[in-house]
Amino acid sequence: MAYKIIDIKESVYEDNDQDAALLRAELKDKGVYLLNIMSSPGSGKTTTLVATLKRLCGEMSIAVMEADIDSDVDAATVEAAGAKAIQLHTGGMCHLDADMTRQGIRALGTEGVDLAVLENIGNLVCPAEFDTGAAKNCVILSVPEGDDKPLKYPLMFTVADVLLVNKIDVMPYFDFDLDKLTERARKLNPKVEIIPVSAKTGEGIDQWCDWLRKEVRAWKE
Amino acid sequence: MAYKIIDIKESVYEDNDQDAALLRAELKDKGVYLLNIMSSPGSGKTTTLVATLKRLCGEMSIAVMEADIDSDVDAATVEAAGAKAIQLHTGGMCHLDADMTRQGIRALGTEGVDLAVLENIGNLVCPAEFDTGAAKNCVILSVPEGDDKPLKYPLMFTVADVLLVNKIDVMPYFDFDLDKLTERARKLNPKVEIIPVSAKTGEGIDQWCDWLRKEVRAWKE
Repeated sequence: MAYKIIDIKESVYEDNDQDAALLRAELKDKGVYLLNIMSSPGSGKTTTLVATLKRLCGEMSIAVMEADIDSDVDAATVEAAGAKAIQLHTGGMCHLDADMTRQGIRALGTEGVDLAVLENIGNLVCPAEFDTGAAKNCVILSVPEGDDKPLKYPLMFTVADVLLVNKIDVMPYFDFDLDKLTERARKLNPKVEIIPVSAKTGEGIDQWCDWLRKEVRAWKE
Repeated sequence: MAYKIIDIKESVYEDNDQDAALLRAELKDKGVYLLNIMSSPGSGKTTTLVATLKRLCGEMSIAVMEADIDSDVDAATVEAAGAKAIQLHTGGMCHLDADMTRQGIRALGTEGVDLAVLENIGNLVCPAEFDTGAAKNCVILSVPEGDDKPLKYPLMFTVADVLLVNKIDVMPYFDFDLDKLTERARKLNPKVEIIPVSAKTGEGIDQWCDWLRKEVRAWKE
């Protein structure tokens, strides 16, 4: 086990938005693009991340923070896929804010890193309320969860910059209408980029990686 | 639209456990069995509940509280299935505690009710931390979420009295090992009752309803 496990502490800052803006500016100065990945438990955050690492690790330096309540299943998986990884233990807390993210960034070390990824706690509610300081928010919704989720968890879909609709390989076995989902998500958030993918079969992952490549490149300009 | 929508307020009680014990005793006195259903978003709480109502509404009086951040999709669905229903809006809060549940119970009215159901916020983290005053906790995990969830959200599986493993109709399309799930859940919680179901096809729902019937009967003795 090469990765570190970090117990992060609750933030002492009162103004998280201000703190997040500061962290974002610090990362911009260093040329580190931070992506915050959020979803329900079981939507496929780790599997999607592993598929992404397999395509991008050869062309840029990637470091991953796996936030989890108390397991370390994901850091091991991500490290096996070739990225530098640390595990953040939130001690029962249901989200990460900017200061908690900064604690992770410091422990991770971002010297020479092009892309840092925060895999947030699996939760469609609380993480949406806290700006982590990331350049962009990626939300993953999987087909089995249903196309009505933007109606029920509106804030999460409002703060998303890119929405990956995962597990499209099982679309035939579920009542899931991609057009309805798109309409519901765009009603909350007209600019959101929506990319259907299957982390399992690889479908759509190239398109997603193209989006991410462009983002990382633009961030460094 | 016959159902009420209630905006619940944050609890003022410091000791939620004590308050929950009090609410449980009050409900016991009235012969009202309160079931707290928790799961991730999209695990099938509402669909399972509707399948349950269809079987049990003819033999007992059932009332349902649908907690949601701000939609009212579920109360309408549940009412159409024949139960008395109210919608609880938590105003962004990610869980319900005992006092919030009591506000719902009061608005619902439990005169003559045998079974009251609280459909908690879709979230595998925060709701597990708050005793709602329910007689029992039902946790739903669906097959597409994966058999590793007890490792990652241990508290939820620790507080479960009954675990419904939903969407077993799609088992062939996912890498999901029911034996592994059972072992992981029982390691945290040796007494948990585990019932595989498909709310869609009806498989296992009779066994689940039998469990619930026995519970409601025993509560009134």
